Amino acid sequence: MRLRNKPWAVELVNSHPESVLQNPDPEKKIDWASRFEDFSKPLEIEIGSGKGQFITTLAEQNPDKNFVALEIQTTAAGIILRTKLEKGLDNLQILRGDAANLAAFFDENAADKIYLNFSDPWPKTRHEKRRLTYKSFLATYKTVLKDDGQIEFKTDNAGLFAYSVQSMNNFGMHFDFVSVDLHHEKPEIVEKNIETEYEHKFAAKGNPIYALHADFNE
Amino acid sequence: MRLRNKPWAVELVNSHPESVLQNPDPEKKIDWASRFEDFSKPLEIEIGSGKGQFITTLAEQNPDKNFVALEIQTTAAGIILRTKLEKGLDNLQILRGDAANLAAFFDENAADKIYLNFSDPWPKTRHEKRRLTYKSFLATYKTVLKDDGQIEFKTDNAGLFAYSVQSMNNFGMHFDFVSVDLHHEKPEIVEKNIETEYEHKFAAKGNPIYALHADFNE
Ligand SMILES: C[S@@+](CC[C@H](N)C(=O)[O-])C[C@H]1O[C@@H](n2cnc3c(N)ncnc32)[C@H](O)[C@@H]1O
Ligand SMILES: C[S@@+](CC[C@H](N)C(=O)[O-])C[C@H]1O[C@@H](n2cnc3c(N)ncnc32)[C@H](O)[C@@H]1O
Repeated sequence: MRLRNKPWAVELVNSHPESVLQNPDPEKKIDWASRFEDFSKPLEIEIGSGKGQFITTLAEQNPDKNFVALEIQTTAAGIILRTKLEKGLDNLQILRGDAANLAAFFDENAADKIYLNFSDPWPKTRHEKRRLTYKSFLATYKTVLKDDGQIEFKTDNAGLFAYSVQSMNNFGMHFDFVSVDLHHEKPEIVEKNIETEYEHKFAAKGNPIYALHADFNE
Repeated sequence: MRLRNKPWAVELVNSHPESVLQNPDPEKKIDWASRFEDFSKPLEIEIGSGKGQFITTLAEQNPDKNFVALEIQTTAAGIILRTKLEKGLDNLQILRGDAANLAAFFDENAADKIYLNFSDPWPKTRHEKRRLTYKSFLATYKTVLKDDGQIEFKTDNAGLFAYSVQSMNNFGMHFDFVSVDLHHEKPEIVEKNIETEYEHKFAAKGNPIYALHADFNE
């Protein structure tokens, strides 16, 4: 969803180049090592972070890992940045850019995990290629992820979920966790779930939340 | 679910050995060719047919195929038989027996399709092996099915569905169709769906119906 443009967010983003990388040239390699305090930590990427409730909470809970929030909208990036600054999250970088350029943004085998939360559903068949679980995106995730790296996907959209289950299966991916009602799983699963903004809103309406964790191993 | 015992059903089953094969000796080969008018037709098997609304409708709509309803309860078998006789379904045989003996009941590569509709969920982890999508059952289905044979699975049980998606994926099966809301798919899908008794009851309560079609190809 398009957020209303917030001038303060644009200004904040522009004044913090050390925290937000804006639309980097896909021809140039990003020097991630210089952007994190300790780049030897595991790296996790969220694609389409929105206002960042999920990734900022995750970064706060896991100081032993590094995180990148990839988001195309400047206003959203600004909202994530505000939280990052408030909480002092040195292990979170914001990348304002297009997921279509993911392979240019990261080295091969760079990441341990990729999160896809409530990605745009693109329900029309002619827009299939834009879905973030279309096979060309999966191929990119495979390149960017380490061999035992994992994708964690959540949505409330029945069509996108069913599509993604089939797409990831047909790509040869191995499923580690499947739920068609995440918020009513066993307490140990529900308790460690970190809600996104969309998740909070749709679960409150009574929609089931679907989840799939998968890797590229045999 | 256990049906209340109906004496008429037991009697009907006992008086129609040409239509119902009861608890056949797993040591002996079943002579299916002698039980169908034309055994060269494609063969489809439903496991746990209950009262048989699904399989009798399917058999009626597809005179060019042969069907076997496998059901462990005699009363259920009797109810299926009554419909078979009323409708004159020569292409439907009833097998009163345990799915655990499936490999003994059929030759290798005998069947084109296996239907699992609203199978008992066995929610406790210690009963996992009884679920009809547990890997040992999948291995049997693979043997009984032709190389391009398919499993069609439907349920309203969120836990069993998620389990089955993961189990079939981890077994290396290839997904052909996935839905987490079958009754709200496109009209062409909804129209050709044949409801089971359980499906009718649970959909009327507003439960989503989950579906998965999968094969054993790469
Ligand atoms: C439906 S929102 C979900 C936001 C958040 N993940 C949540 O669950 O609340 C999708 C987000 O993905 C972003 N997005 C969509 N396409 C993108 C792309 N190609 N690259 C980067 N971000 C994208 C949108 O700007 C939007 O913020
Ligand atoms: C929950 S009911 C569903 C009936 C029907 N398929 C429907 O959707 O309405 C499950 C059925 O499977 C049968 N069943 C359970 N375990 C079985 C087994 N091991 N072998 C054969 N039938 C079995 C039960 O007797 C019952 O009729």
